[in-house]
Amino acid sequence: MLGVCYYPEHWPETMWAEDARRMVALGISHVRIGEFAWSRIEPRRDAFDWGWLDRALNVLGNAGLKVVLGTPTATPPKWLMDEHPDIAPIDEEGRPRGFGSRRHYTFSSQTYWRESARIVEAIARRYGEHPAVVGWQTDNEYGCHDTIMSWGAEDLRAFRQWLRRTYQSTDQLNEAWGSVFWSMEVTEFDQVSLPNLTVTETNPATRLDFRRFQSQQVAAYDRMQCDIIRAHSPGRWTTTNMMGFFTEFDHWPVGENHDFVSWDSYPIGFVERFPFSEDERNRWATTSHPDIAPFHHDLYRGIGGGRFWVMEQQPGPVNWAPWNPVPKPGMVRLWTWEALAHGADVVSYFRWRQMPAAQEQMHAGLNLPGLQELSVGGREAESVGRELAGLGALPPNEQASVALVFDYEAQWVLDIQRQGADFRYFELAFRWYEAVRTIGLDVDIVRPGQSLEGYRLVLVPSLPTVSDAAEQAFRDSSAVVLYGPRTGSKTRHFSIPDQLPPGALRDLLGIRITEVSSLRPGLSEAVDGLVSGAAIRWVEHMDVASTALAHFADGHCALAANGRHHYLAAWPDARLLSTTLELLCKRADLKAHALPPGIRMRRRGSLHFAFNYGAESWEIPNDVELVLGERILAPQGVAIWRV
Amino acid sequence: MLGVCYYPEHWPETMWAEDARRMVALGISHVRIGEFAWSRIEPRRDAFDWGWLDRALNVLGNAGLKVVLGTPTATPPKWLMDEHPDIAPIDEEGRPRGFGSRRHYTFSSQTYWRESARIVEAIARRYGEHPAVVGWQTDNEYGCHDTIMSWGAEDLRAFRQWLRRTYQSTDQLNEAWGSVFWSMEVTEFDQVSLPNLTVTETNPATRLDFRRFQSQQVAAYDRMQCDIIRAHSPGRWTTTNMMGFFTEFDHWPVGENHDFVSWDSYPIGFVERFPFSEDERNRWATTSHPDIAPFHHDLYRGIGGGRFWVMEQQPGPVNWAPWNPVPKPGMVRLWTWEALAHGADVVSYFRWRQMPAAQEQMHAGLNLPGLQELSVGGREAESVGRELAGLGALPPNEQASVALVFDYEAQWVLDIQRQGADFRYFELAFRWYEAVRTIGLDVDIVRPGQSLEGYRLVLVPSLPTVSDAAEQAFRDSSAVVLYGPRTGSKTRHFSIPDQLPPGALRDLLGIRITEVSSLRPGLSEAVDGLVSGAAIRWVEHMDVASTALAHFADGHCALAANGRHHYLAAWPDARLLSTTLELLCKRADLKAHALPPGIRMRRRGSLHFAFNYGAESWEIPNDVELVLGERILAPQGVAIWRV
Amino acid sequence: MLGVCYYPEHWPETMWAEDARRMVALGISHVRIGEFAWSRIEPRRDAFDWGWLDRALNVLGNAGLKVVLGTPTATPPKWLMDEHPDIAPIDEEGRPRGFGSRRHYTFSSQTYWRESARIVEAIARRYGEHPAVVGWQTDNEYGCHDTIMSWGAEDLRAFRQWLRRTYQSTDQLNEAWGSVFWSMEVTEFDQVSLPNLTVTETNPATRLDFRRFQSQQVAAYDRMQCDIIRAHSPGRWTTTNMMGFFTEFDHWPVGENHDFVSWDSYPIGFVERFPFSEDERNRWATTSHPDIAPFHHDLYRGIGGGRFWVMEQQPGPVNWAPWNPVPKPGMVRLWTWEALAHGADVVSYFRWRQMPAAQEQMHAGLNLPGLQELSVGGREAESVGRELAGLGALPPNEQASVALVFDYEAQWVLDIQRQGADFRYFELAFRWYEAVRTIGLDVDIVRPGQSLEGYRLVLVPSLPTVSDAAEQAFRDSSAVVLYGPRTGSKTRHFSIPDQLPPGALRDLLGIRITEVSSLRPGLSEAVDGLVSGAAIRWVEHMDVASTALAHFADGHCALAANGRHHYLAAWPDARLLSTTLELLCKRADLKAHALPPGIRMRRRGSLHFAFNYGAESWEIPNDVELVLGERILAPQGVAIWRV
Repeated sequence: MLGVCYYPEHWPETMWAEDARRMVALGISHVRIGEFAWSRIEPRRDAFDWGWLDRALNVLGNAGLKVVLGTPTATPPKWLMDEHPDIAPIDEEGRPRGFGSRRHYTFSSQTYWRESARIVEAIARRYGEHPAVVGWQTDNEYGCHDTIMSWGAEDLRAFRQWLRRTYQSTDQLNEAWGSVFWSMEVTEFDQVSLPNLTVTETNPATRLDFRRFQSQQVAAYDRMQCDIIRAHSPGRWTTTNMMGFFTEFDHWPVGENHDFVSWDSYPIGFVERFPFSEDERNRWATTSHPDIAPFHHDLYRGIGGGRFWVMEQQPGPVNWAPWNPVPKPGMVRLWTWEALAHGADVVSYFRWRQMPAAQEQMHAGLNLPGLQELSVGGREAESVGRELAGLGALPPNEQASVALVFDYEAQWVLDIQRQGADFRYFELAFRWYEAVRTIGLDVDIVRPGQSLEGYRLVLVPSLPTVSDAAEQAFRDSSAVVLYGPRTGSKTRHFSIPDQLPPGALRDLLGIRITEVSSLRPGLSEAVDGLVSGAAIRWVEHMDVASTALAHFADGHCALAANGRHHYLAAWPDARLLSTTLELLCKRADLKAHALPPGIRMRRRGSLHFAFNYGAESWEIPNDVELVLGERILAPQGVAIWRV
Repeated sequence: MLGVCYYPEHWPETMWAEDARRMVALGISHVRIGEFAWSRIEPRRDAFDWGWLDRALNVLGNAGLKVVLGTPTATPPKWLMDEHPDIAPIDEEGRPRGFGSRRHYTFSSQTYWRESARIVEAIARRYGEHPAVVGWQTDNEYGCHDTIMSWGAEDLRAFRQWLRRTYQSTDQLNEAWGSVFWSMEVTEFDQVSLPNLTVTETNPATRLDFRRFQSQQVAAYDRMQCDIIRAHSPGRWTTTNMMGFFTEFDHWPVGENHDFVSWDSYPIGFVERFPFSEDERNRWATTSHPDIAPFHHDLYRGIGGGRFWVMEQQPGPVNWAPWNPVPKPGMVRLWTWEALAHGADVVSYFRWRQMPAAQEQMHAGLNLPGLQELSVGGREAESVGRELAGLGALPPNEQASVALVFDYEAQWVLDIQRQGADFRYFELAFRWYEAVRTIGLDVDIVRPGQSLEGYRLVLVPSLPTVSDAAEQAFRDSSAVVLYGPRTGSKTRHFSIPDQLPPGALRDLLGIRITEVSSLRPGLSEAVDGLVSGAAIRWVEHMDVASTALAHFADGHCALAANGRHHYLAAWPDARLLSTTLELLCKRADLKAHALPPGIRMRRRGSLHFAFNYGAESWEIPNDVELVLGERILAPQGVAIWRV
Repeated sequence: MLGVCYYPEHWPETMWAEDARRMVALGISHVRIGEFAWSRIEPRRDAFDWGWLDRALNVLGNAGLKVVLGTPTATPPKWLMDEHPDIAPIDEEGRPRGFGSRRHYTFSSQTYWRESARIVEAIARRYGEHPAVVGWQTDNEYGCHDTIMSWGAEDLRAFRQWLRRTYQSTDQLNEAWGSVFWSMEVTEFDQVSLPNLTVTETNPATRLDFRRFQSQQVAAYDRMQCDIIRAHSPGRWTTTNMMGFFTEFDHWPVGENHDFVSWDSYPIGFVERFPFSEDERNRWATTSHPDIAPFHHDLYRGIGGGRFWVMEQQPGPVNWAPWNPVPKPGMVRLWTWEALAHGADVVSYFRWRQMPAAQEQMHAGLNLPGLQELSVGGREAESVGRELAGLGALPPNEQASVALVFDYEAQWVLDIQRQGADFRYFELAFRWYEAVRTIGLDVDIVRPGQSLEGYRLVLVPSLPTVSDAAEQAFRDSSAVVLYGPRTGSKTRHFSIPDQLPPGALRDLLGIRITEVSSLRPGLSEAVDGLVSGAAIRWVEHMDVASTALAHFADGHCALAANGRHHYLAAWPDARLLSTTLELLCKRADLKAHALPPGIRMRRRGSLHFAFNYGAESWEIPNDVELVLGERILAPQGVAIWRV
């Protein structure tokens, strides 16, 4: 199904009915509204103006549209900020981050919790049972613009409370953090300070706890909103819209607050936000890299418990990347189909019409700025609407054969302590995902500790802290498992495990890591054996009680296996990664074959999708029956057949 | 004529008379003094010490020199800053910018207006009718060191007043800014905050208004000084000295305050301040790029209403660029002649003698540090003095055939909203200017809205906001006109025009821009047709009701013409730019021919100048009668003939 | 002799005796403890806990180890910081640098002097005559993490006092600083402000004085600690541990406080801290550049008055560089022998055992994290222990033939006023040192003004301010002397000397510098004559009354000689540097021959050492009698023979 984001408050009321009619004509079933409208709903404290929103809901509902109502907490109005300066977040340099854009609040502000509850309740009470309203979105893009962390007095107060709850005594805190080092011990919780503005790096254990604390605040704040909505809006679902390449809070617990999760898919802008090479950036500048959106579809489907929406789909050039090219013709359609192929219930475009004023005036919409006339992207959405109508309901998504374990805490741990400047967890996870997708396999992205039943191959790019549940899930799995470097390298309190890494996985893997080496970009270490290629960025030296499958040139073991469990003691270059996956697929009895560059596949139930992100046409095998597209899959083309 | 900047307060009084004598001997007629001497004029509040300045003026006047007296407001003394901390500017991060260098005041400080008026009046009263004083310079280099913008309480107060005057009501403010977006609406002007220290980007309309406000403050502050001077110094002119590559305030209104404007020409240092390629930077490191000084001569001649001075001319290596090489032998002479060729009344060297102490001790002067002995640059100035004496008075400057429209607001708009990281207005304007100069044409730089009568070719590299006056001037012109990308793309309130860009010029051009695309450095789009080359950085897609003269490879029109009015929907690479200009010159019936690299021409009345910035000699056509120089124009050479 | 750094407070008391036993078994004689233990010694004000430290000293002493006791002033505990916020340093942006790491104090804090004296006296009283204690280390790594400079109210107060003492009157201050420039004059010392947060660059004379002031504070603070220790610990020596590539305070006066100085040698991490080319960084990534540690050995031997220790020797990969590779096998042994060859009394490894928690958990030790099991580096240290036992006491170090004059003030002056962005004094000094070492010569690094008696060749890479003592030492020397660019270019008050550079050395050298030119990276000037190559980065034009030995292409003199005194008017490229040294060695009658890349030599009394940092083996001349190593010196190999 298709959706769209709409802002009735931006347009003359006289345009609304025609807008709604044209949405329906385009094949749109869902419309999201309201998430930035606080200053229109409550222009002054307690002076609510519901009239316009009543009318907007009626117009949309009367046209047959289902409304997703957003809570407006991402944009507290100026009168509220002036009343309560403690709402503002404080940046890492100690400066208030003021009014004038959005997300100007800290999750630690007690005032803001109270005010958020007040506005959410007012809206939920008024519209909770409105017939047009089918669901709710809480807030908008938690964490956007670096807003998870805040470094002010409110945050310090709340962090000390969290530590008191977590550690009970300062002795336990000092012990957990190793505070004896550099005389960092405290004798009262009120002596704890935030890990910013220090002379040199702060204790990594403190930084990790500060991230956990902030992340848990997000989940709790979000749950507070959900609880209020549920109390006043029976039978409606809730969701929240997440972002791409964003790891500042743990998304899994937030996912548990909701019926499903959503994410905002801007494939082109993201090309500049990932450490691609310049060559890759040029190659994918107007199509996006073929695994960016899919990675997130698979990730958020996992976080959503098997269901997800794209709440905001890029409909043309946007405004926020360093460069904002027009997508290649056909890409808006392709991205929409790709999302559906990965199991999306709804793909909702952002936004119905380009807004001619304010910050996002250069962000395309389905309609030209200020006009009731479709843009290029609008016409592509129209095609999808037609095609979807022709195909009927899509089959449900099914479990993949391959699972990739993704952990937000891994990102934090490895970011807090890179040890090599280019050891970036997300990059490693993404490159492993890409490698599996380029051999035609579907992937589920799973949470550590989640059951691995039913998977044939499990990939763990890195998992520095291994919980008891995660260890148990690995032990219980019958899959072939590949663990990457630094897995098991830290305890929960950010120290090196007793008896060395991989800590709790030592027996399962039959290895012990005695030394690690980070390599500057000019350096690498050759690897040879059952797999081959080179280690870049990172090499580990290990004692191996199990089987060595490949070695570095200096004789150290590079890939060890203990039955189904494999450990790769390196950041692999492309060849080492692909030969390793080839070996592992064989061991997992999975059929894999390399796809041409730019071609990707995805199965959704009985439907098999093929996408061409590349510059060359590709011939689809003869023996399939196409239900969409041509046998010669042209650049930017989509094909679907039944299996 | 030649001038020089002199600081009697830096030298023992015993040196003054000999300095004055040697100036005159060198051919110098004008000397600028006093602009940093506040702490010597008024060492403590109201304790004026006029004696030294009385004597200095007399010594200089007695030697026959004409004195330009500077107001010392660029350097308020410490006692004043300690009395009134509200004078200090506040940086964008919220920190006071303290005493210890110069320009430590905000234009918003009411205290500083009062104190400036006080010191200017004191000096103007004392020396307004001194026979040696022929003119005045207000302040010094407004805006140098990023001092136009300030972000403190004084600035906020003044900005709110300005908004109140401009918009009358907050409803009109909210409407103009599109504040409904992200709930940015205010209900009182005192709710407005400055557009800094926000979570993410602020409203571009706010930023544009903040720039206009600050710019207007500069003009008003400058006018305040001019008014005081005029009241006390009958028959003297005023000027102020502007800078290179500097656009933080609108220079046109400041120019209106004065009899003429001046600028400070440091051709070599500027090579590092413009986004040249590394190759260009190496090639021009010791001569300067041949269009840097000329561009500014033509710009400030325009701003000065047809008259300008070079108030500070680089006389050798300076101290403030990342690298400060010795200029190639002859360049000080060449730069001086180039300024005169472009119409300068006076070229005044900075400074008479290198100062052995303090911040600028590595800045060359006409004399060696602390000595009464000419430097290399001093000897070159001496040559010009002799040559000028030989030539007699130079003829008046005449209008060129080509006008280039330059707009400070264009710089602000496109800087506030680059949309592509390398869309830099000044760079675009400079490259268009360079392209015209390399085909031997003289250029006038004009203000949008100014009459275009008498021009055959008008170039508008970009003009996002088109005022009514500008539109009328284009309509009234009989010239061939070329408009560049993003012209007409914004309303006065920084939004996309109704019915899309180019807004008010839509009918004149017969086009409508529906989509824009910014391209990262690795990408380009080929253009072919009556002109050819490639678009880099920026491409626009347009609906064309007029004639398409060239197309992009994907079929979109790249160059459209509606009669004499042409629109180029791209940032042109060098070839696209030169073929376009070739076509336009032909249509304007202008004779143009490519000059060898490094050769430039300029006409001043009956005199024709040629300059060689390059490394190869060039043979001047046989049929001219040289009044200066040789027929073989050697590197760093100057030639003049009559036409 | 070998030593080690040990933290009994980090480990269960039950491990101490076995640790001590294993140290002795490894050949370790000295152990440093205590320098970060304030929070364990005094967990709350005046609540001292001596028990654990009593027992630790006894365990170590009973095992036969000699203890170096550190004062814990680098890590004031949280209760103290909460009591006295004025202790915290203020960064250049005006923000307090808070608790949470180390070195969170400013040397200007009167409170902290009092508190430091209190804790040092308490420790010195208790352990001053403990039989295991043989010496003391004051504080730890003065200045680490940019902590020499602080910019707060305490610093301003102390700076004004220092200026009052130094200049007596503001007239003299204004005169010395040239404050008349830009009206920077003051009439009271309390008008002086710190040279930060100004609009543009501050007066270089102010900045230089601010650095001198801060540097003198370090020496005085350190002397305060030494005086207390000496009063309570008769017969023990003191030292302090200095760092690599660190010049923020003048180390020579601090050296005078102590019996000898120490330094902390981390050869690999330093490769990323020096402006090497990428090629060099890759080549030396796992061995270190062969002159980094030696340069510092020679420097700190000089500062220590002929004696030095390596207090912290890198034992494997560390944690603080952008990349932290495992050193090549053998390098820990090689570095240890290299330090001994340069005259070190003791090489002390940092640290006994890798700490599994807190900031340095990825820093290798001689033992694996948390375990009583040697690491790779531990086993190499064990080899050195055995080899040292076999060789017996090493002979005393002797004076070298070559002296290199190194001046901390030169670094400050040239950093305050680079004039060319890549004019870096330390780099110049290091490259000159490297050039001498690659032709097999030993070097002493000496302080300007120190007697040069006994040297055949004296190198002065640059010495902008030449004190009377320095001038006298040059005049008295019978050595061939080579002065580099900018020598003599500034007075003590940071101005250009009367009659121009080289100031006081003008007569000695027979030259006068009239113009200087800094060249961007793409540019160079060829040099030819008795020496040849090219000038890069920096060229000077001089009047030469003495002999010109080589010229630039434009005819200016590049190398001038007045008898034994030579002046090089350029930053030399590698060829110009080597041909110049070749010429100078010949003139000094020194035998020099180029060594293969990566091979270095050093003599210590009768022992001749050879080291192979390269990738190729090297055959040692046949005629020597090896006492350690093989005739074929393999990569990472060490050889010793008697001469």
